[in-house]
Amino acid sequence: MGKPNAETEFALNKFGLKAPRVIETAANEVDKVMLVDHNEPQQSVSDIDQVTVTHLVDHHRIANFNTAQPLWATVRPYGCVSTILTEMFQEKHIDIPANLAGMMLSAIISETLLLNSPTTTDHDREAVEYFTKVAGIADYHKYGVEMLKAGANVNAKSDAEIVDGDAKTFELGGSKLRIGQVNTVELEDVFKRQADLENQMKALMDQNGYETFILIATNILNSDSELLVVGANTDKVEKAFNYQLADNHRMNLPWVVSRKKQVVPPLTDAFEC
Amino acid sequence: MGKPNAETEFALNKFGLKAPRVIETAANEVDKVMLVDHNEPQQSVSDIDQVTVTHLVDHHRIANFNTAQPLWATVRPYGCVSTILTEMFQEKHIDIPANLAGMMLSAIISETLLLNSPTTTDHDREAVEYFTKVAGIADYHKYGVEMLKAGANVNAKSDAEIVDGDAKTFELGGSKLRIGQVNTVELEDVFKRQADLENQMKALMDQNGYETFILIATNILNSDSELLVVGANTDKVEKAFNYQLADNHRMNLPWVVSRKKQVVPPLTDAFEC
Repeated sequence: MGKPNAETEFALNKFGLKAPRVIETAANEVDKVMLVDHNEPQQSVSDIDQVTVTHLVDHHRIANFNTAQPLWATVRPYGCVSTILTEMFQEKHIDIPANLAGMMLSAIISETLLLNSPTTTDHDREAVEYFTKVAGIADYHKYGVEMLKAGANVNAKSDAEIVDGDAKTFELGGSKLRIGQVNTVELEDVFKRQADLENQMKALMDQNGYETFILIATNILNSDSELLVVGANTDKVEKAFNYQLADNHRMNLPWVVSRKKQVVPPLTDAFEC
Repeated sequence: MGKPNAETEFALNKFGLKAPRVIETAANEVDKVMLVDHNEPQQSVSDIDQVTVTHLVDHHRIANFNTAQPLWATVRPYGCVSTILTEMFQEKHIDIPANLAGMMLSAIISETLLLNSPTTTDHDREAVEYFTKVAGIADYHKYGVEMLKAGANVNAKSDAEIVDGDAKTFELGGSKLRIGQVNTVELEDVFKRQADLENQMKALMDQNGYETFILIATNILNSDSELLVVGANTDKVEKAFNYQLADNHRMNLPWVVSRKKQVVPPLTDAFEC
């Protein structure tokens, strides 16, 4: 995903920062790495098995993460990994620069949909308060809506950006799933392009060996979501949410905003039983 | 392992505490557990897959530890998990009672062989200083030697206590190993009973399906160790330490005191390559 998405661009511009370099491999540069915000090997650089993970800061489930040696790992079930990092900075009494605080605030807003996701904890709320002050933002809610809207303009996105721009791969019950999520202010803006999106999902499945591709489109204004599924095991997807897919391969999942907390766990149960 | 060993008995008596209850299963009592000092499922209660792990505090490698949900995990590469716990107490500004501090001090002394193990970190040294003060110990070194000697009296131990009293099971390269470790003040006290110990190791292998059983006997006064191996894959054990086994199935490993840092990693390399 070399290029930052429109939401990230908005935040980078706001706080006067450049996007960090994206790497696909690590062993060509270093022999030790720290992982942030992920631990599953298939979500990491392609040669993760060639380097030693010395540190992990994460807020996801632990899956297929094995180390030969003890490491430093700080995992918390918070809404955003920025909140964990803040607490680590605070424990060591290290100040966070204003522009970095602004980016970390943006990360929490993005990941918790302005503290609306069920993944949101009091730790995240406290971190938002702290970052708002440090970053010099007058009203984080107003800033947050602006930022989310900048990222939710699906009309400016290609089919690939919509289905795969924020997608992750999961291995559930021996089956390889790709789960994408896209934010919008109008679900119809996504689904008027459904035929093209399905073709894009199928092409990515062929290229990468995914057996199932799920796209969650979420209306950020009212937290309403629509799920679209392509590929095998649609019966398991139905079982996961206890709901029938319509003929258009979709189901409505009102109030589902969190892939991690509301989508992956029921899918895990359905695929692994 | 229902009954505490002589070293633990010594510490419990010193600080006026009773041994905690030992459990073999958890799901019959609770549906959520916190794991301390281990994460590999085969080292846990037998029904660990039936309960949810909500918290982990550990200082071992991460292996086959998978969760369906994000959890609280604090893993540090320190010599003893008591040191991690102290730091967590200190972060929350919670005092540790004197007798508990004494037990946690004893744990660090036991696991680092009086701060001599290569696993020892400055964090452990600071924790020992802190606990010594809180527990009201005049000289932790003097107390530590007394405690280690109490546990190192192998003449008072049965064959099973020597080979299996502190043993752990590892899955390396698809092979099931049992690795025991025993402290002594005289290696000959262990190996004058070698024939009986080997019979005990073989009996446990048959009962539990271990393919290899390794016993490390460590002289706590000079950190000298002798390794005894029974079962399959002795060539891999030789490869791990780059040393030939003598006809008596033993090799001398001077300065090896840490199973975790000096025994398991080279065995992992040898068994998994």
